[in-house]
Amino acid sequence: MKFLSFKINGTEQYGVFDDQSNEIMNLALLAKKDGTLPLTLIEGIKQGDSFISSVNQTIENLGNDRNTYLVNKDMIEWLSPIPHPIKNIMCVGKNYREHAIEMGSEADIPEHVMVFTKATTTVTGHLTTIQAHSEITNQLDYEGELAVVIGKKGKNISEEEALQYVFGYTILNDITARDLQSRHKQFFIGKSLDTSCPIGPWIVHHSAISSPNDLTITTKVNDEIRQNSNTKHFIFSIETIISTLSKGMTLEPGDIIATGTPSGVGKGFNPPKFLKKNDRIDISIEGIGTLTNKVQ
Amino acid sequence: MKFLSFKINGTEQYGVFDDQSNEIMNLALLAKKDGTLPLTLIEGIKQGDSFISSVNQTIENLGNDRNTYLVNKDMIEWLSPIPHPIKNIMCVGKNYREHAIEMGSEADIPEHVMVFTKATTTVTGHLTTIQAHSEITNQLDYEGELAVVIGKKGKNISEEEALQYVFGYTILNDITARDLQSRHKQFFIGKSLDTSCPIGPWIVHHSAISSPNDLTITTKVNDEIRQNSNTKHFIFSIETIISTLSKGMTLEPGDIIATGTPSGVGKGFNPPKFLKKNDRIDISIEGIGTLTNKVQ
Repeated sequence: MKFLSFKINGTEQYGVFDDQSNEIMNLALLAKKDGTLPLTLIEGIKQGDSFISSVNQTIENLGNDRNTYLVNKDMIEWLSPIPHPIKNIMCVGKNYREHAIEMGSEADIPEHVMVFTKATTTVTGHLTTIQAHSEITNQLDYEGELAVVIGKKGKNISEEEALQYVFGYTILNDITARDLQSRHKQFFIGKSLDTSCPIGPWIVHHSAISSPNDLTITTKVNDEIRQNSNTKHFIFSIETIISTLSKGMTLEPGDIIATGTPSGVGKGFNPPKFLKKNDRIDISIEGIGTLTNKVQ
Repeated sequence: MKFLSFKINGTEQYGVFDDQSNEIMNLALLAKKDGTLPLTLIEGIKQGDSFISSVNQTIENLGNDRNTYLVNKDMIEWLSPIPHPIKNIMCVGKNYREHAIEMGSEADIPEHVMVFTKATTTVTGHLTTIQAHSEITNQLDYEGELAVVIGKKGKNISEEEALQYVFGYTILNDITARDLQSRHKQFFIGKSLDTSCPIGPWIVHHSAISSPNDLTITTKVNDEIRQNSNTKHFIFSIETIISTLSKGMTLEPGDIIATGTPSGVGKGFNPPKFLKKNDRIDISIEGIGTLTNKVQ
């Protein structure tokens, strides 16, 4: 099941994307009429697996009314599936060996999980514009990443139980101003420009992704393949990341964790290939889909 | 005016602390009866200076009913003045010369503002317990800091206008697990253990603090003075910090920015003086008050 958030006529809604009809079932609208579904996606995420059965049951009960709640995907403004994250996006740095090396040398391969954050104000949706911020940076870069959405509150989670805390998976573009990133040492400033965190198009429920540590991931800029890897090359698995983060720190439903980017970022080329206005970035992950944004 | 958040009979409230009577005016209760005040402090912060005049006017109008809304400060459970931050706490690293040196050497004095974040789940109030997390760290450390609370949405704010975006000032203890901080490189993990961010006791409105870049700050552990400095020793002024952060990143009402800690942290001593169970930490800042917490 693919959960997404969107705006239609200026109002925020959430829904499920139906692959067969290529349309969106507006669950927020349905929730208002029906009374059993939660009014927001984050409330649904908190309900856990019972949310999935509620959604299935409610849609099934619709019968001929089904069409009333369907929205054409070309009619919506895409939002981040979680449009208002409750805390900063947590991002694992240097989680692919080849990327760590392209950013410096073998000495940059981390021995322990490294985590920085992006401000909540960075998030934006599929098919939205990434601001170039050309008055602040001339080294804007892309980073295609698999992101995990937490579904259940937890602390001190073991690696064995870690995947039970995942609601689903999505695609995240960890847009980075490389000049700010290196100038300010800690990564937060260089990672937190407005619109620097496209997420989407949707969250795929964990039940549809059997091996999150074995998914192909590719990033194209204007149709040129720049990143082409597989999450099996993670230095730290999703289980290790969740377990490490939750040591003494409570994870909450709706938390978003980006798992790191493979090699092939703009900075990794000689000369570097930073983003320019009008560049289109497509990040595709097996079993999820493609997140597309343009720089403006 | 001193704004605080607290629990009484299990319910979250906010109020103003009255220095004369040494009691708290419960504004949340008053808001429900009166209808003009906002129901939460964050809503009040968004109203800007009109919030201050509403509070003054409403209290003045109370007349003899005043006592109905007063709460004894010994009857409350203190919360962080902003109990549910809308994003991670932003913290400036190494903003006092002597502290940068005690953490390493003169080479550690930053040339540019360095910012990391603490998870929203870290915040806790005055007189609450800081968890020792002894199964995870044996290098728990204190950092007394002046914190700025943003009052107005803004981006690309100039240094000249920066203080106009401040709602008020509070005290923050940036509790840090030094072993995790150095093991995980980026600071987020070592800075984000649950209860590692006591804030309070209250936010003092900016109108009562004429020179935020010239306030004495002291930290005591079990009555022993460990940190004793003045915000005039900032490497980067509050104006520079706000201006730098807002370059390309929207600041929002309720954002909390910790301005860095002076020298005298536990790690700076030889041998280090890390926190132990039952340690009491008192951080005092001129014009604000004292934030007290115990380790357990």
